[in-house]
Amino acid sequence: MANIAKKVSWSSRGDEPAQGEGTPLLNGTGAARYSRQVTCLFTWYLESVVSRPKEIPHNEKLLSLKYESLDYDNSENQLFLEEERRMSQMGFKCLEMSRWLVCALIGILTGLIACFIDIVVENLAGLKYQVIQQNIERFTETGGLSISLILWVLLNSAFVMVGSVIVAFFEPIAAGSGIPQIKCYLNGVKIPRVVRLKTLVVKVCGVICSVVGGLAVGKEGPMIHSGAVVAAGISQGRSTSLKRDFKVIMQQFLKVSGLAGGVLFSLEEGASFWNQMLTWRIFFASMISTFTLNFFMSIYHNKPGDFSNPGLINFGRFDSDVSGLLGALFNVLNYWLTILRIRYIHRPCLQVMEAVLVAAVTATVSFTMIYFSDDCQPLGEDQLEEYPLQLFCADGEYNSMATAVFNTPERSVRSLFHSPAGSYNPVTLGIFTITYFFLACWTYGLTVSAGVFIPSLLIGAAWGRLFGILLTLADPGKYALIGAAAQLGGIVRMTLSLTVIMVEATGNVTYGLPIMLVLMTAKIVGDYFVEGLYDIHIKLQSVPFLHWDAPATSHSLTAREVMSSPVTCFNLVEKVGTIVDVLSNTSTNHNGFPVVSRLSDGCEPGKICGLILRSQLIVLLKHKVFVERARSRLNQRKLQLKDFRDAYPRFPPIQSIHVSQDERECMMDLTEFMNPTPYTVTQETSLPRVFKLFRALGLRHLIVVDSDNQVVGLVTRKDLARYHLGKHGLEELQLAQT
Amino acid sequence: MANIAKKVSWSSRGDEPAQGEGTPLLNGTGAARYSRQVTCLFTWYLESVVSRPKEIPHNEKLLSLKYESLDYDNSENQLFLEEERRMSQMGFKCLEMSRWLVCALIGILTGLIACFIDIVVENLAGLKYQVIQQNIERFTETGGLSISLILWVLLNSAFVMVGSVIVAFFEPIAAGSGIPQIKCYLNGVKIPRVVRLKTLVVKVCGVICSVVGGLAVGKEGPMIHSGAVVAAGISQGRSTSLKRDFKVIMQQFLKVSGLAGGVLFSLEEGASFWNQMLTWRIFFASMISTFTLNFFMSIYHNKPGDFSNPGLINFGRFDSDVSGLLGALFNVLNYWLTILRIRYIHRPCLQVMEAVLVAAVTATVSFTMIYFSDDCQPLGEDQLEEYPLQLFCADGEYNSMATAVFNTPERSVRSLFHSPAGSYNPVTLGIFTITYFFLACWTYGLTVSAGVFIPSLLIGAAWGRLFGILLTLADPGKYALIGAAAQLGGIVRMTLSLTVIMVEATGNVTYGLPIMLVLMTAKIVGDYFVEGLYDIHIKLQSVPFLHWDAPATSHSLTAREVMSSPVTCFNLVEKVGTIVDVLSNTSTNHNGFPVVSRLSDGCEPGKICGLILRSQLIVLLKHKVFVERARSRLNQRKLQLKDFRDAYPRFPPIQSIHVSQDERECMMDLTEFMNPTPYTVTQETSLPRVFKLFRALGLRHLIVVDSDNQVVGLVTRKDLARYHLGKHGLEELQLAQT
Repeated sequence: MANIAKKVSWSSRGDEPAQGEGTPLLNGTGAARYSRQVTCLFTWYLESVVSRPKEIPHNEKLLSLKYESLDYDNSENQLFLEEERRMSQMGFKCLEMSRWLVCALIGILTGLIACFIDIVVENLAGLKYQVIQQNIERFTETGGLSISLILWVLLNSAFVMVGSVIVAFFEPIAAGSGIPQIKCYLNGVKIPRVVRLKTLVVKVCGVICSVVGGLAVGKEGPMIHSGAVVAAGISQGRSTSLKRDFKVIMQQFLKVSGLAGGVLFSLEEGASFWNQMLTWRIFFASMISTFTLNFFMSIYHNKPGDFSNPGLINFGRFDSDVSGLLGALFNVLNYWLTILRIRYIHRPCLQVMEAVLVAAVTATVSFTMIYFSDDCQPLGEDQLEEYPLQLFCADGEYNSMATAVFNTPERSVRSLFHSPAGSYNPVTLGIFTITYFFLACWTYGLTVSAGVFIPSLLIGAAWGRLFGILLTLADPGKYALIGAAAQLGGIVRMTLSLTVIMVEATGNVTYGLPIMLVLMTAKIVGDYFVEGLYDIHIKLQSVPFLHWDAPATSHSLTAREVMSSPVTCFNLVEKVGTIVDVLSNTSTNHNGFPVVSRLSDGCEPGKICGLILRSQLIVLLKHKVFVERARSRLNQRKLQLKDFRDAYPRFPPIQSIHVSQDERECMMDLTEFMNPTPYTVTQETSLPRVFKLFRALGLRHLIVVDSDNQVVGLVTRKDLARYHLGKHGLEELQLAQT
Repeated sequence: MANIAKKVSWSSRGDEPAQGEGTPLLNGTGAARYSRQVTCLFTWYLESVVSRPKEIPHNEKLLSLKYESLDYDNSENQLFLEEERRMSQMGFKCLEMSRWLVCALIGILTGLIACFIDIVVENLAGLKYQVIQQNIERFTETGGLSISLILWVLLNSAFVMVGSVIVAFFEPIAAGSGIPQIKCYLNGVKIPRVVRLKTLVVKVCGVICSVVGGLAVGKEGPMIHSGAVVAAGISQGRSTSLKRDFKVIMQQFLKVSGLAGGVLFSLEEGASFWNQMLTWRIFFASMISTFTLNFFMSIYHNKPGDFSNPGLINFGRFDSDVSGLLGALFNVLNYWLTILRIRYIHRPCLQVMEAVLVAAVTATVSFTMIYFSDDCQPLGEDQLEEYPLQLFCADGEYNSMATAVFNTPERSVRSLFHSPAGSYNPVTLGIFTITYFFLACWTYGLTVSAGVFIPSLLIGAAWGRLFGILLTLADPGKYALIGAAAQLGGIVRMTLSLTVIMVEATGNVTYGLPIMLVLMTAKIVGDYFVEGLYDIHIKLQSVPFLHWDAPATSHSLTAREVMSSPVTCFNLVEKVGTIVDVLSNTSTNHNGFPVVSRLSDGCEPGKICGLILRSQLIVLLKHKVFVERARSRLNQRKLQLKDFRDAYPRFPPIQSIHVSQDERECMMDLTEFMNPTPYTVTQETSLPRVFKLFRALGLRHLIVVDSDNQVVGLVTRKDLARYHLGKHGLEELQLAQT
């Protein structure tokens, strides 16, 4: 029975080159190169517009092997059956109750975090703008406005530097909106550290700094991420929660959206494994979260009991129709920029420098725009403008450009939607749109916590309003809404949930159809040129993301061609030494092993008996559950399901478990612990069929057998994710270790 | 190779009695008994409250074999692969486009039907109430009010008789709300004739008659059913639409609800097989439908362009908290009543008589209540009352009871929600609640097209308002809303979609939490006593309905115990005579046959090669695709996938295909036509695992194999649906042919 576990990497297959071969890895360590290139930071940005992206090698055509997959399949081994038998009817009901409680808790906590972010941003930004406003007012007449500019730049840079430093040095995964990561997580890809407490703290502080620092960012994406962390954290506190990580997610979305929007978002964006109870629980948690937020915000605003603030962006009621070419342009530019960033800017200090640079440029550009703007508007009585800047306008008037840029982006959006006709002149809107477009595009992807929702809405609202004014239409505000929807749709390309969100935000079902048509047009137009922003970023990170369906025209591919083989299998009764060797092999790092019954010669692949996971084997090794010991420890406690659960989610690495030379010769009986009925398919099964099984059941390993039920291969997530429909038909991505 | 197909009924298994044995079938033909019992119609209703339901034999513990299952699995045979290979990229895009067009068409048609129903009901009911109102006014002082009563009774009875006759004699499946049937259809059970054009016509006319006839019914359920028929009809027009039947459904729900409500409804209520594209298409069709409806209704009301009518029930904004015991009582009463109906009233003429009786009683009771009511209210200036009855009130006043009962139920609901405090006195509301409760309970299940949504809302609104008045609260209208939500939740038990519908109807997210809590409380309280109304009716029809999850504690059941065996299998190359004999066997009527490769002795069960469907075999027989003929018709056209599609959905019965004695001796090669990779499981697979596979992939047949891949059994829907969690743990339903 020696040499039973074949030492093969199941990522290297006979009929193709080994992983990533021939493609320069972008995250290489060419440190010497950097120093030469730090000096020409600006040249790169010039390049980013001029150079053709195809000439730059990047990892979009690779599939990273560093991401692990989540496993929603239940190991129905004997321990599990025993536990179920012991459990009473009452026990089930308690379990059910506790799940609802967990959901309520998640909702409450998420709502509180959202509150915290809101209140802190409101106060800090208010303080900042007040200081600058007073300063500008003081110097407007005496003529030292350059001092005001410096003050503004310094304040912004300071905030952004703090936000950028904590992200770059403490938790890089907290950069960006977090939505691509959550999308992957929902899809079943385990992104390392994405749901840690540290990530949450950095995210919350980071997003406060970015927004207060005046960057062209929103706080919605990071809030979604925060909600997901809370949800995963709370549900991981209980050990049966493998599936719950997932159950939990998009409460915070509710903050922006409403109710159904959040549920549909989780549905649209990931949900590789769905059931009704899940929907209910997400919905419930969403409700609680919205309620908590509204409750505390109304107390904060000294109107306790007034719950009439159903979201941050309750726009109004509008309709119209436009499209989303700008979205595609945004995404293409951001794509080039991201490739440049991957290539050149991946040292934390460089990242911080870039963020501070963007903050300074944003402040300077804003100031310049306000300074040269001559769009003076009379101060209304309703005081829609939070921080009206008089500057060079007559008394009783304010600078209209300042309303758009001297404000948090969220307030600007609201102003663009709700200000009466004539509040902005076309030149102001035109200049603002163009400037803000490039600023937002530059900003997304910086090493700060930052969402792209609000900036997209702002760009769209500005050009929508411009459009409305140019056509001399009565209510430019409604064009602002449609423009905002189109721009957001053109950038992130979520039609369904965005429609619901927009409809819920406007509170009028009747405008659903125009909004949906706008979003669909934006998506179709945009998709013609380039993918959605989130998908681009997911691709650039080489995540093995599974889409909803297998690529069309892939029915001719069969499991035989897709699967990895040969497979490392274990016997029903296996030698401890073999198991330890296989688990210790860092070059493969397999996570699931088919268990086979084999003839004693061991050359034939055996008949499938079950599937055992790395985590289970490690627990067994840790508890030294060896056949030889069974006799000597009759009085010892039997291993229970609880022992496996306690090890979740962070079971110890194999290196931490000491196995003596004597013990290596012992045998381990896997019968009781393996999953005795893993899902299998035959070699002739088509790729779409395998894909459907994999996706519908949330699998991590799917065993391929021949007509005699002998194991011939194993299909994992990366085997399916590598095929995609390119311009020339079916294409295959290469696998890379990074 | 003779006698290969074993003639076994796979519904009769060795270890249990044959189907339905020992249980009297309720739909028996004891015609003699009826005549004796017609005379004591009233006694039965008395019985219905007194007698204990457990003493009455009914078919709730049976599972009918007459329902077929829908099949969402794709037969990936060689013809399919060839067709895919031929299809260009362009072709796929066209197919995609045409699907969206179909959805748009569905939306438009459904919206038009809803318009039609609305307008006709509005006009006819208006006419009826005007005539009666004038009549009553004429006779109030002269004192011949009994003539008015007779007029009212006659008018109502006439309408209801027409509605009842067309349902009872032409299309019995059009009875009721249609929601239980659609729920089953979404679940994957093919209810005969439920999506036929004839059903649609009868449903539309029937619901108009019922509502105009003054029954305690609503028109929302039938509208949902109409939407489903339109959707199924249009998508069946195209031959690839097997899956589309399903894709399409709940547009009309939108009429009541809004956007997300409809989508969530389909999700909550059935969706045994779900994907993202589907969601989008349903959503799109919903949008189109709502838009069409609003557009035409606004033209009808001479306000073209005014789309501000986002639904029929745009309630207002409210909050509070109550529960749903009344719902359980309603369901229990209706359950007993339905059992009585199944037992005694199943001849069409009796059914019509009962419907007319109910109509007459409803009119009489309404008249009596108005007559004896002394709740006079001053006529407001806003004229909320559509048909104010003065009766014995002073001039300038109207009878308040008449507002509640002398009106379509929908208008009554609106009045209860929106009338200012003091419009109703408590006695009026109390009497109305009690009377209407029993009337609605009696009405649901009559042989007329009738929904239970609006009556539930009405009962709930009445007692909610009563509750509000008794607690002397400022705004009884908001209690009416919460009461309505609770009552509806208590009766139909859909928490998620109802919350969304209510929230969307009130247009305020903030009241989502109270409404949801109310609905959940109502559901929990109600579930403690009895199931939801729709579920009761589904159970009473013995439909093999699959719930979302397998019953808890069923992990110890394995596929070996669940499956039907032995299985009728075919060889890869099979004798035509054998096939014809198996297909002609009316006692089994199997629909899927595993194809096996077998040793020549034919005693062993063979290794699994594929799965072939009855419909495919019939097409093959019809085209005489025999091995012997292959040589002689080399110049003949090869069979294509199109030939199979053309046969869908109504392939000819086997009896219509003539097979000569010579041809019986021919052989048929199934290799090219069978599905070569059907899903299989091993005998040890647990019930929940089989269930999950079945549900997630929308299967109709799941083959059970042993460790040598030999076919040992077949799992179909009824094998899974028969297990349910009763009071004493896992219970098994019996199978019956009816």
